[in-house]
Amino acid sequence: MKNRQLLFGAAYYPEYLPYDREEQDFQMMRRAGMNVIRIAESTWSTLEPQDGRFCFSLLDRTLQRAQQAGLQVILGTPTYAIPPWLAKKHPEFLVVTEKGQAHYGHRQLMDLANPDFRFYAERVIRALLAHAAKHPAVIGFQLDNETKHYHTASVWVQRLFRSYLMQKFHTPQQLNRAFGLAYWSNAIEDWNDFPDMRGCVNAGLACEFDRFRRSLAADYLKWQAELVNAYKRPAQFIVHNFDFEWKTFGTPPAPDGYSYGVQPDINHLEASAALTVCGADIYHPTQDKLTGAEIAFCGDSTRCLKQKNYLVCETQAQAFPAWTPYPGQLRLQAYSHLATGANGMLYWHWGTTYNGVETYWRGLLGQDYAENPPYREACVIGREWEHLGDKLYGLQKNNRIALVVDTLSLHALRWFPTGKELSYNDVVRWMYDALYTENMECDVVDIHGLDFSRYHMLVVPALYCASEETLEKLDQFVNAGGVLVSSFRSFVADEQLSVWADTPPHRLARCFGMHYCQYTLPHNVTLQGEPVLDWMELLVPDSAETVAQYTHPVWGAYAGITRAKYGTGTAYYIGCHTTEKLLKSVFAQAAEDAGLTAEIPQTSFPVILRSGSTAGGERWHYLLHYSRQSRQWCCAYPRVKDLLTNQVFCRGETVPLAAWDVRILQDVPEQNS
Amino acid sequence: MKNRQLLFGAAYYPEYLPYDREEQDFQMMRRAGMNVIRIAESTWSTLEPQDGRFCFSLLDRTLQRAQQAGLQVILGTPTYAIPPWLAKKHPEFLVVTEKGQAHYGHRQLMDLANPDFRFYAERVIRALLAHAAKHPAVIGFQLDNETKHYHTASVWVQRLFRSYLMQKFHTPQQLNRAFGLAYWSNAIEDWNDFPDMRGCVNAGLACEFDRFRRSLAADYLKWQAELVNAYKRPAQFIVHNFDFEWKTFGTPPAPDGYSYGVQPDINHLEASAALTVCGADIYHPTQDKLTGAEIAFCGDSTRCLKQKNYLVCETQAQAFPAWTPYPGQLRLQAYSHLATGANGMLYWHWGTTYNGVETYWRGLLGQDYAENPPYREACVIGREWEHLGDKLYGLQKNNRIALVVDTLSLHALRWFPTGKELSYNDVVRWMYDALYTENMECDVVDIHGLDFSRYHMLVVPALYCASEETLEKLDQFVNAGGVLVSSFRSFVADEQLSVWADTPPHRLARCFGMHYCQYTLPHNVTLQGEPVLDWMELLVPDSAETVAQYTHPVWGAYAGITRAKYGTGTAYYIGCHTTEKLLKSVFAQAAEDAGLTAEIPQTSFPVILRSGSTAGGERWHYLLHYSRQSRQWCCAYPRVKDLLTNQVFCRGETVPLAAWDVRILQDVPEQNS
Amino acid sequence: MKNRQLLFGAAYYPEYLPYDREEQDFQMMRRAGMNVIRIAESTWSTLEPQDGRFCFSLLDRTLQRAQQAGLQVILGTPTYAIPPWLAKKHPEFLVVTEKGQAHYGHRQLMDLANPDFRFYAERVIRALLAHAAKHPAVIGFQLDNETKHYHTASVWVQRLFRSYLMQKFHTPQQLNRAFGLAYWSNAIEDWNDFPDMRGCVNAGLACEFDRFRRSLAADYLKWQAELVNAYKRPAQFIVHNFDFEWKTFGTPPAPDGYSYGVQPDINHLEASAALTVCGADIYHPTQDKLTGAEIAFCGDSTRCLKQKNYLVCETQAQAFPAWTPYPGQLRLQAYSHLATGANGMLYWHWGTTYNGVETYWRGLLGQDYAENPPYREACVIGREWEHLGDKLYGLQKNNRIALVVDTLSLHALRWFPTGKELSYNDVVRWMYDALYTENMECDVVDIHGLDFSRYHMLVVPALYCASEETLEKLDQFVNAGGVLVSSFRSFVADEQLSVWADTPPHRLARCFGMHYCQYTLPHNVTLQGEPVLDWMELLVPDSAETVAQYTHPVWGAYAGITRAKYGTGTAYYIGCHTTEKLLKSVFAQAAEDAGLTAEIPQTSFPVILRSGSTAGGERWHYLLHYSRQSRQWCCAYPRVKDLLTNQVFCRGETVPLAAWDVRILQDVPEQNS
Repeated sequence: MKNRQLLFGAAYYPEYLPYDREEQDFQMMRRAGMNVIRIAESTWSTLEPQDGRFCFSLLDRTLQRAQQAGLQVILGTPTYAIPPWLAKKHPEFLVVTEKGQAHYGHRQLMDLANPDFRFYAERVIRALLAHAAKHPAVIGFQLDNETKHYHTASVWVQRLFRSYLMQKFHTPQQLNRAFGLAYWSNAIEDWNDFPDMRGCVNAGLACEFDRFRRSLAADYLKWQAELVNAYKRPAQFIVHNFDFEWKTFGTPPAPDGYSYGVQPDINHLEASAALTVCGADIYHPTQDKLTGAEIAFCGDSTRCLKQKNYLVCETQAQAFPAWTPYPGQLRLQAYSHLATGANGMLYWHWGTTYNGVETYWRGLLGQDYAENPPYREACVIGREWEHLGDKLYGLQKNNRIALVVDTLSLHALRWFPTGKELSYNDVVRWMYDALYTENMECDVVDIHGLDFSRYHMLVVPALYCASEETLEKLDQFVNAGGVLVSSFRSFVADEQLSVWADTPPHRLARCFGMHYCQYTLPHNVTLQGEPVLDWMELLVPDSAETVAQYTHPVWGAYAGITRAKYGTGTAYYIGCHTTEKLLKSVFAQAAEDAGLTAEIPQTSFPVILRSGSTAGGERWHYLLHYSRQSRQWCCAYPRVKDLLTNQVFCRGETVPLAAWDVRILQDVPEQNS
Repeated sequence: MKNRQLLFGAAYYPEYLPYDREEQDFQMMRRAGMNVIRIAESTWSTLEPQDGRFCFSLLDRTLQRAQQAGLQVILGTPTYAIPPWLAKKHPEFLVVTEKGQAHYGHRQLMDLANPDFRFYAERVIRALLAHAAKHPAVIGFQLDNETKHYHTASVWVQRLFRSYLMQKFHTPQQLNRAFGLAYWSNAIEDWNDFPDMRGCVNAGLACEFDRFRRSLAADYLKWQAELVNAYKRPAQFIVHNFDFEWKTFGTPPAPDGYSYGVQPDINHLEASAALTVCGADIYHPTQDKLTGAEIAFCGDSTRCLKQKNYLVCETQAQAFPAWTPYPGQLRLQAYSHLATGANGMLYWHWGTTYNGVETYWRGLLGQDYAENPPYREACVIGREWEHLGDKLYGLQKNNRIALVVDTLSLHALRWFPTGKELSYNDVVRWMYDALYTENMECDVVDIHGLDFSRYHMLVVPALYCASEETLEKLDQFVNAGGVLVSSFRSFVADEQLSVWADTPPHRLARCFGMHYCQYTLPHNVTLQGEPVLDWMELLVPDSAETVAQYTHPVWGAYAGITRAKYGTGTAYYIGCHTTEKLLKSVFAQAAEDAGLTAEIPQTSFPVILRSGSTAGGERWHYLLHYSRQSRQWCCAYPRVKDLLTNQVFCRGETVPLAAWDVRILQDVPEQNS
Repeated sequence: MKNRQLLFGAAYYPEYLPYDREEQDFQMMRRAGMNVIRIAESTWSTLEPQDGRFCFSLLDRTLQRAQQAGLQVILGTPTYAIPPWLAKKHPEFLVVTEKGQAHYGHRQLMDLANPDFRFYAERVIRALLAHAAKHPAVIGFQLDNETKHYHTASVWVQRLFRSYLMQKFHTPQQLNRAFGLAYWSNAIEDWNDFPDMRGCVNAGLACEFDRFRRSLAADYLKWQAELVNAYKRPAQFIVHNFDFEWKTFGTPPAPDGYSYGVQPDINHLEASAALTVCGADIYHPTQDKLTGAEIAFCGDSTRCLKQKNYLVCETQAQAFPAWTPYPGQLRLQAYSHLATGANGMLYWHWGTTYNGVETYWRGLLGQDYAENPPYREACVIGREWEHLGDKLYGLQKNNRIALVVDTLSLHALRWFPTGKELSYNDVVRWMYDALYTENMECDVVDIHGLDFSRYHMLVVPALYCASEETLEKLDQFVNAGGVLVSSFRSFVADEQLSVWADTPPHRLARCFGMHYCQYTLPHNVTLQGEPVLDWMELLVPDSAETVAQYTHPVWGAYAGITRAKYGTGTAYYIGCHTTEKLLKSVFAQAAEDAGLTAEIPQTSFPVILRSGSTAGGERWHYLLHYSRQSRQWCCAYPRVKDLLTNQVFCRGETVPLAAWDVRILQDVPEQNS
C-alpha cells in the first residue's frame, strides 16, 4: 500500500464472468482512478475444485494482470462458502441450528467450530497463501467474509459451551444461581444433565450461549489471522469486513434491507483483536432517503474499534433496484466515508453477476460491463482522490462525546422488548441519529472497550445489562465531572440478565438522583406537548430535577426525564421513548453541561459537518449536503478554504450548495491566508 | 381453611429468590391482610434435583415460617415443568406434535400419556405428599398447573387413540361411515392401516383426536387426584387452576394476550370431576381497557362446573408493562371476583422473577420487593376482607339465563370458520359481553353439563355440532316454555362433524319456524340500518316472524333474524354477525319473552351490578364502576345499605361513584332498617 | 359423446354420500338438462380398499343407473389421493420436499416419480379400466386430477435430475458454466459431488429443477394416457383438468383464492400432448366481483394448447361462502365459457360433502340435496343448451393477437421480483385484463408453442428468460410486419437464467430501437400524468420514438415507453408498470399499427363481446353483460339476430341488457334476413 494513498476500488470476481475481460476491466478501473481490487473470497470451489486438488491458474492470471495494470490486491481467504465436495464428504459440517440442519447451497452455513472443518479450511488457506501471499501486488488480506456464528448449535458446540460454563461457574449450583435456573424447574445438579440449548427459555442462559457463539466466531477469525501471519510480509495488512445488523423489510426471496446498527452475531470489538486494519461493509438507502446516517454510524463505530482509520471493504454502487443513485450521490457517499475516518473504499462489486441469487444487486457496472452514469461518477471521485488523496488520508478525530453500545443488551432486549416495534438498535439509532443530525460528532464505543477518560459526555441507549464494575465506572465518570445521558431500560440487570434485586436504577440511583418502581406502556400520554412513543418508566425524582413531567390523568404524578447534579457532573435519565425533538433538546442541554456547545456547529441536517485533523495538524471540515434542493449555507468558521475549488469563505459569508454537494473546508489563518 | 374465610394471597417461589427473604415477605403479606400462599408447583428440579434424590429442606423452611406467620398453604404438585435430568434420561418424554419433537426448556412440553413418565411423576408426587401433606399449614392441594394436552401425538398416544376408536366404532367400516373417510381416499378396511393423525385433514376425525387428547389431559388430573387422595386429610381441598383460551396479539418472544374464552385443549367440565374445588387463572387488560368482562366470564363459567363457589388461583397484580393498574383497579377487580362467586383470590405472583422468560410479568411487588402502589392497594383489600370476609364468603347465584358453550364446536369452527376474523370464542364473547354489559347475569355452561330445568332462557353461540339428543332437548326446552336464542352456525353437524343431510337447521327447523338453504358473506349488507359484520345465512321464515330483514339488492329477499313461538316457548335465530346494538335489542326482547325483565337492573356498563344471596338468605348487589370518570348512579333498589360505608340508599336516590369504585349493597327492609 | 352435444353436468361422488340417492340425483340432473357426470377420481380407497383387493360394486351401480338415466360418464383414474394402506406399506411414497416429508392425509402428496408407486397406480388403473372402460355410458377418461409435481425432492427424484443434467450438459464444467456455479463456491468437478437441491440458491439451477419436475408431472400423465389407450374405445376421449395458479389470500385452514394465471408446477402445453381433449378447472370470484376475466383467461389459454375446443371439467356452482351467486350469474358464466370456445362444462360438484375439509365448498346443491336457486338456474341453462347445443357447439376463433406466456419466466420472477407485490402472473393479468376489458380478443400461448405466422400482434408480459432462437423469431416477426408489445423485465436472461452479457434488451435492442443500462423502483414518478406503479427501466431511445417520458427531477431524462418502426413492423416497449389506462392507450395504438382496429368492437367492460364462427361458417357474437345495473347497448354490428330471443338488431339500435344478461348475436345479411 503506497504511503498515504486512499484506497479506491472494487471487489472483483473473474470466476463469475462468462468470458475473460480482465484486461478491459483493469483498464476501466485505472481510468476511473481506482487502485485496488479485492479478490478470492468465496471462491473455494474454484481454488480447490476437488478434495486436495488446487488450481491457481485463474488467480495467477488475475494477480499478474493486476500488477501490470498497477492495481493493488486484497486477497481474501475463500472460506465463507464451502464447495459441494466438502458438504458431500462431511454433511456434518452443515450448520445445525434451532431450526434443524441446513441444506447445502447458501454461503455461511458451516459449523465453524467443528475441528474437522478447520482442517479443510486451514489446508485451502495455507495452499492459497503459500502460493500467492508474497505476490508483489498483494497489499493485504481479508479474513473470510462477514463472519458470524451462523447460530451453530451442533452437539460439538454445545459440548464446548458446557465446558465453558464449567470453567466459568465451577459448580452446577453456581450456574443455577447465576441464571436462576430453578425457574420452571431448569436447575441441574450434575453437568451431565445440562440440556440441549436449542429449547432454552432462560433468557440469561440463552444470551450467554449467544455470547459464547460470538466468541467462537471471533476465535475463528483469530485462528485465520494466525495462519495468515505465517505467510504475510510485515507491510501487508490483515482486514476483515464487519457487517452490521441488517434492517430487513419485505419478504424472501428478495427482501430489502440495510446496515442498521450493532451486529448481534459477532462482537466487533472482540473480533478486531485479530486484525491490523478494521474494515466494514456498509449498505444504506439512497435516492431521496440518503441521509448519511448509516455511513456515519458504521464509520464512527468501526473507527473506534482500534481508534484508528479504517477501510470500507464493501459499499454499494447501484445495488438494489430501489437504490439506483441520483447524480452526485456516489461522490457524496465517498466523501462521507472519508469524513468519518475511512482511508479508502471498495465497491461491491465491479460488475453485476450473471447468475446465482444476486443478479439484481448491481455493482458499479451492469451485466453489460459498459460505461454508465455510476461509472462516470466513480471517475470523478477517482480523479479527485488521485489529486487530493495524500491530504485526505488519515483524518484524525478527537470526539468528546461517546455513544456506548453493548451486544449483550441487544440480545436482552430481544427477550424483553420495550414494545412491539422498538428493538435495541432502534433505541441506538434514535439516539445516534439525533446526535448526527445536530452535528454533534461522537464515537460509537463498545461498553467493554470504553476509555472513560477520553470523553466529556456519554450517551447510553438501553444498556439493559452491565456489571457492577461498569456501573461503578459510570458513577465515577459523573462524579468526576462527566455528563451522562441514559435512555430508559438501562441498568436493569447484571450480565447474566438477572434483574437487580434493589430499586432501579440500582447502583446509579444516587447518580441519577431518582428511582422508579413501576413502568408501563404509554396510551395518550404526552411530555411537554410531545407524544410519548413507547415504554415509560414512572420516575420519582429524589435529588434530581424534573426536566419533563408526564401529562396524563394518572401518570401525571411522575417524571419522564430527570437531570441531576452529581459530584461535579450531571446525569440525565430519559424514562421513555420520546420524539426526536424532545431528545435533541435534552442533548443540547447536556452538551452545554459538558462544555461542548462551542465545538458544535450551529447548523443541522441536511447540512452535515464532520471535522478532523491531519497528521500535520491541519483541521478539515467536510461539508456534506444531503438534499436534492440547492441551498445557501452561512459559513460558521472564521476563515476556511475549499480544497476542491480553492474558494475562501469567511464567517457569515454565503457558501452555495448544490444538490448532494460536497465541500472540504480547511481552516486557514484569519488574515494572512 | 378457616370457616367462611375469603382466601387472599399470592403464589410464592422461594426457589426463585437470590436471597432468603421469606420472613420479611410473610410479614408484608400479613400486614396486607393476606392469609394464604401457593407453593411448590413448577419446582420439580428443586424438590428432586437428581433422579430419585429428594430435597425438602427449602420446602420445610417455607412451611414452618408460613405456619409461624399465620399463613395457610396450598401445595402444588410440581409436575408441569420437568427437570433436566429427566429429559436427559428419557428424551422420549418430550412431546411430539404435528411440528416435531420439542426441545427441552419450556414448561408443559411432556407427553403426559406416557406411562414411563407417569412413573416419575408419581414418585415425586408421593414423596412430596408423604413428606408435607399432613403439615398443619397445608389447607389444600393444587394438581399440576394449567394442564392441557400439549398437542401430544406420540406413537404411544396415537396407538391409544386407535384403541379408543376401535372401542367406539367397532369396525373400520363404521369408522369410515361416521367420519366420511371415503373423501380423498382416506377410508380404511383394516385397523392396522389407520394413518398417522399428524397429517389428518378430515376435520371430524381431527376434532375427535383433539377430544381424545383433552380426555387424556383430564385423566391425568384424575390420576393425580387419586394420588393426592391417598395422603390428604379430609378437610384439605383439591383444586386445579383452569386457564382459558389465550387471545394473543403481538409476536414472540413477548406476545401480549389475555384470558379470552373457552379453553380448547382441556375440557373444564370433564376435568373438574377430579377436584373438590374448582379454580381458575384469569388475566385481562387493565388501565382504560378494564371492563370486568373477562373476570365475569371466567367466573360465570368456573362457578358452573360444579355450581359451587370457586377459587381464583392466579390473577394479575401488575403483570405486563401495559397492565400497570390505575389506582383503584386492583380493588375493583378483587370485588368483581367475589361478585361472581369466588371465595378467594391469589395474585400471580408475590414478587417478580429475576430470571427466566417472565421478568416483565410483574407480581404484586417488583424485583426490589419493596412497598409500592399495588402493594398498598392490596393492603386496603386485605383489611376490608379481614373485616367483611365472613359476610362476603359463599355468594350464591340463581341465574335463569345460561350461555351454552361447547369445546367441540370451538374446534369445528377452526376448520370451518365463519369468516377471516371470527373465531368460536369471538361469537361466544359477542353474546356473553352483550349480556354482561346489559347486566343480564348468566351462567356459562358446557352443553354436556347443562341442566335444562334450571333456566328460562338459553343463549347458544355457534353450536356447530351437537347430537340428536341435544337437539331434542333444546326442542323440548322451547316447547315447554323456554326461550332459546341461537346465533348463526348452530346445529350444522353431528358430533363427528358430519353435516346434517337435511335442510338446516335440521331437527330444530320446526322449533325455529324457519329454514335456509344458502349462506354467504356480507358485502354492503345492513339489518335495521346496522351493518352485517360477518357471515349471513339467508333465512326463510316458515312459522316464524321476521325480526329483521337484510337490506341488499339481492339478499333483501331473506330474513336475518327470526322469532318463532313454539309450544309455550319462543325461539330466536340470529343468522348473521350483527352489531352489539342489534344483539342487545334481541336479548331484551327475549328476556321479556322469558319473563325476566323485572330481574334485570335498568342500568348498563360501565355500571355493573352483580347480585347473589348468602347462606343466611341475605341478598347482595355488587355495584362495580368500570370507568375513569366519576358519576352519579340512581339507586334502582327499594332500600339498600352499603356494606363498606354503612350508607343507606333508597330507590331514586343518588349514589356517587368515584373512578373504579365499588359498593356492596345489601337489601334491607324498606321501613324498619 | 353425441355429435355436437354440449356437455353439461357435474362431478358426482356416491362414495361420499351417507345414503343412496343416486336415482333421485340422476333424475334431478336430467330435469336440469344435464347429460354427463364425472366419477371415480379420488376414490382409490373405495375401489381398492385393501392391497390388491378391488371392489367395483358401487361403481357398477353408478354406471348402470347413469346409463338408465341417459347420463354419460367421464371416468377418472383414482390416483390423486392414495389410500391409507398404501401409505402404511410404503411410507416412502409420501412426498419429500424442501420442508420435509409429508404426513399422510391430504391429497396430492405422493412422489409420483417413484417407480414402486407407479406399480400400485398402474395396478388400480388397469383394474378399473379392464372392468369399466368399455361400459357404454363411458364417453371418456380423465387422467388423475389437477396433477402437479408436488415439489417432490426425494433422493430418487434428485438422482433422476442429476442424470438429466449429465445428459444435457455432458460435463460438470459445462454445467458450472451454464449456471455460473462458481458463484458462492457452488461449482462441481465430479458429478458425485452434485449437491442436494433442497438448499439450492442458484436461481437458474433451481428453476431448472422446477422445470425438470414439471416434466416429471407431464410424463406421469403421458404414462397414464398410455395405460388408458390400451383399454379405451377409439371414440372415447382422454381429458385432464388443468388448473391455474391459485391466488391465495387469507389464512389456513380456510384460505380464499381463485384461478389466477399461469400454472407454476406443471406445464400445460407439455402435458397436453397426452390428451385428446384439453380440460380446465376454473374458479373465480362472483357477486359484485364477477368480471369474466378469469373465465376468459383460462379458456383462451386452454383452447390454445391444441388450438381446439376444450372442456371445463370443474367450475363452481356455489363454492366458497363469499361466492354464493346472484341470480343470473350462473347462466352468464355458462355462456362465457362457450364464448371462449368451451364445448361443455361440469360443476364441481353436484352436492356438497358432509365430511372432510371442504364442507363449506358448496356444489350446485347443499348438503340437503334439495332444489335451491342455483339448481333452478342450472335448469334454465340446461334447457337452453338442449335447445341450442347443436348451434353453439364448436365455436372457432381466429384471433390475430396473442399474449405470450412462459412458465420459466414465472419462476424466474419469483427469484428476481420486480417489486414487493408484483408477480409474473400479476404482469400477465395486467396485460391480459387490459385486452379483455377492451374487447381485444386474444390467444394465450406458451412461448414454446407459438406459431408466429398466425398473429399480427404479440403481447409479451415479463418474458424474463428466452433462448436466442426465440429472440431471433421475435425480431423476424417484427421485421416482417408484426407488432410486438413487450412489458418491462423481458429479454433479461437466457433459459438458464444467465443474464445476457451485453446491453439490454440484448438481441432485440435494434428491434425496439432503444436500450437501457439502469433501472430502479418508482417513487413519486409519473408518466403522462399517471403514476408509475412499480419497477422502471430507464429507457434510452435510439431509433425509437418516445411514447411517454418519465416526469421526475432525475429520471425525467429517460423514456418510460418507446415505439420503434423496425422493418415493416412496429415494436413497443413498456419499461414500467403503468396504470391500466396508459396500457390500454398503448394497446389501442398498437392495434392500429397492426391493422386490427376495425375488428375490435368499440365497446368495453362491463359489456363484453366475444366472437367466433361455427363449422358452417356462421358468425356469432356473445354479448355478455358483467354488471348488476341494467343498461342499453348500442348495437355495433350491421345486422344481428339474438339466438335466444330471435330479436333482430341493426347498427345503432338499442339493445337492452338486464343485470348479468347474455345475448347471442348471429350476423345476418343486412337486407334479406
